[in-house]
Amino acid sequence: MPKSARRMAHIQPFHVMALLARARELEAGGQSIIHMEIGEPDFVTPQPVIEAGIRALQEGRTHYTPALGLTALRQRLSGFYRECYGVEIEADRFVITPGASAALQLVLAMLVDPGDRVLMADPGYPCNRNFVHLLNGVPVSLPVDAATNYQPDAASVDAAWTGSVAALLVASPSNPTGTLLNDADIRALFAVTQSHGGRLVVDEIYHGLTYGEAASTALAVSDDIFVINSFSKYFGMTGWRLGWLVAPREAIAGIDKLAQNLYLAAPTLAQYAALSAFDPENIAILEARRLEFRTRRDYLLPALRDLGFDIAGTPEGAFYLYADCSRFTDDSYGFSVRLLEEAGVAITPGIDFGEHRPERHVRFAYTTSLENLKEGVRRLKDYLGT
Amino acid sequence: MPKSARRMAHIQPFHVMALLARARELEAGGQSIIHMEIGEPDFVTPQPVIEAGIRALQEGRTHYTPALGLTALRQRLSGFYRECYGVEIEADRFVITPGASAALQLVLAMLVDPGDRVLMADPGYPCNRNFVHLLNGVPVSLPVDAATNYQPDAASVDAAWTGSVAALLVASPSNPTGTLLNDADIRALFAVTQSHGGRLVVDEIYHGLTYGEAASTALAVSDDIFVINSFSKYFGMTGWRLGWLVAPREAIAGIDKLAQNLYLAAPTLAQYAALSAFDPENIAILEARRLEFRTRRDYLLPALRDLGFDIAGTPEGAFYLYADCSRFTDDSYGFSVRLLEEAGVAITPGIDFGEHRPERHVRFAYTTSLENLKEGVRRLKDYLGT
Repeated sequence: MPKSARRMAHIQPFHVMALLARARELEAGGQSIIHMEIGEPDFVTPQPVIEAGIRALQEGRTHYTPALGLTALRQRLSGFYRECYGVEIEADRFVITPGASAALQLVLAMLVDPGDRVLMADPGYPCNRNFVHLLNGVPVSLPVDAATNYQPDAASVDAAWTGSVAALLVASPSNPTGTLLNDADIRALFAVTQSHGGRLVVDEIYHGLTYGEAASTALAVSDDIFVINSFSKYFGMTGWRLGWLVAPREAIAGIDKLAQNLYLAAPTLAQYAALSAFDPENIAILEARRLEFRTRRDYLLPALRDLGFDIAGTPEGAFYLYADCSRFTDDSYGFSVRLLEEAGVAITPGIDFGEHRPERHVRFAYTTSLENLKEGVRRLKDYLGT
Repeated sequence: MPKSARRMAHIQPFHVMALLARARELEAGGQSIIHMEIGEPDFVTPQPVIEAGIRALQEGRTHYTPALGLTALRQRLSGFYRECYGVEIEADRFVITPGASAALQLVLAMLVDPGDRVLMADPGYPCNRNFVHLLNGVPVSLPVDAATNYQPDAASVDAAWTGSVAALLVASPSNPTGTLLNDADIRALFAVTQSHGGRLVVDEIYHGLTYGEAASTALAVSDDIFVINSFSKYFGMTGWRLGWLVAPREAIAGIDKLAQNLYLAAPTLAQYAALSAFDPENIAILEARRLEFRTRRDYLLPALRDLGFDIAGTPEGAFYLYADCSRFTDDSYGFSVRLLEEAGVAITPGIDFGEHRPERHVRFAYTTSLENLKEGVRRLKDYLGT
């Protein structure tokens, strides 16, 4: 039997996929399941972007684009940052990528040598540590909790900065906790990475999906930060696989050669369709959806607390609630399986997000209708007897 | 200045990109350029697939698919292998990927530890060695020439198999040489990889674009070979970014977790559109295009020879002719620059394909009309004075 690379032992599958597969089985058998495990908006891509995609197909836009992406889309993004954040980022610093996944891979491939450490919040997005494993780097978990709004603070980053650290990776809003970094937080984190000669990488893929103040971009703090974003979440374009990266200008040539080699170019059709994503008509639809997400959050958060789940503060963004379930269990995976099998409610166990108390946490996604969320809460109430 | 990962010094950009950018500049200035450097079909995706894409958009197919791809497409590919090659490959061994690039990355990420060697033909597809660099492996060039139809033979592979070799990677038809491996060749290469406990990976992305006998798939030799393919070339779907991988069954779980982490899923729309790629109406269009490519090859090959380029044998597939230009130059890059600037003909210098005599080779792509090829040859004739 030929060998597998050692990284394969470190890379975990998404445990929720097994639950999702089981949920589909139960549904195929006629059982009703309320899905609160799914990390993508339930909405179909808005019609203006759909129609732009159809036009691009009718015009025969089926060849490769340049590796860095369509010039028109990079320019459009530059305009978006001016209008939306009031920051000036020239178009040639935008790299259009096949999803934020590719953006994250580009940045880490450029920064991380084997053995290098990358600091990241725990709980956090599961793929982050696996991209580091791909490159034979060492993901270093920074345990976070309610005391720091589930975000790493500068002091803990400074304390963890030992050995060869290539980068600090943070997300605002965070998955799974939905919490934000404000300008001052980002400034402090940037200062500590600078003091060690490392890099700050900020995942902003849930930008736009905030329900109080808008999130501020790390690019307002410095041009020397790598920012990752995506058309998937706010723009509702998950299946199109389109994201972007903003990089310091001196990094663009290196990013370009990596992109040429790793994936050639992002999907052409998605790039043409995304040119319409910023049109007022489309933004109006997205804003209505944002308000719908807020309504869902504002229902689900107190409802889960009433059931006995402990959720610190009010998560400001994304579409997740990360809940302490220790009143019910000290095995959140087994608990999630039982909720699925016995209550018909699918949620994501903490184990998918890291090693910091995963057994006492679960993630609820409000990516299903308010009606479904209410039914889910009824089922949980019956099952948990609270 | 923060450091870059060491791999960045090994990874080369495509040198032809600088030529292509200069060609676009010249064109913007009103000059006519004949493009014989471009590695994608000039044809737009055929109408049946375009229409399937439009239908998918109208139906709102914009969410993620499973990481391994749409079940219906995996089943369709299984049927295609039965009809086209007479081999039985169960649907669950097909992995739908965002382009063949992702398929190659999945396989190598699973097989290659830092320091591991991967054997490959030189000249060969430039990204291959860079995927190995990404993983801090060591690409090992097997110099090939006309004596073995520009393909590695079992004896040279056996001789090069020293140290920790993870895999042998071959391509049939080859880029840049267009040559094929036959069943006996593949059997011999598979036997030598087996004898060393390594893996054979076969790039079949130019399958379908052959002009004599059809290429045979390595899967007819063994189920224990990794085969990479794509909708880009024969199916004319480059910009959609869709490929596939056929893997031994025991590798699928590992591939699945890598795919989940590295890119989540291939573009949804492309997957739905590709369901129509195998329809008789579409295949009829593709076959007409194949004959057009053959006509172009049959014109260009003797025409280039008449000009003084030395091309061994008759390349059986892809849309490339790899030509020895040593009658004209011992600096094929400078030669390509001069042809562009002074003759208005763009070609790809050998340096993009490896280290084995690149300075005396150039690649001509026949991805432009017969009329353009004739004009290109006229310009070359005038310029070279032959």
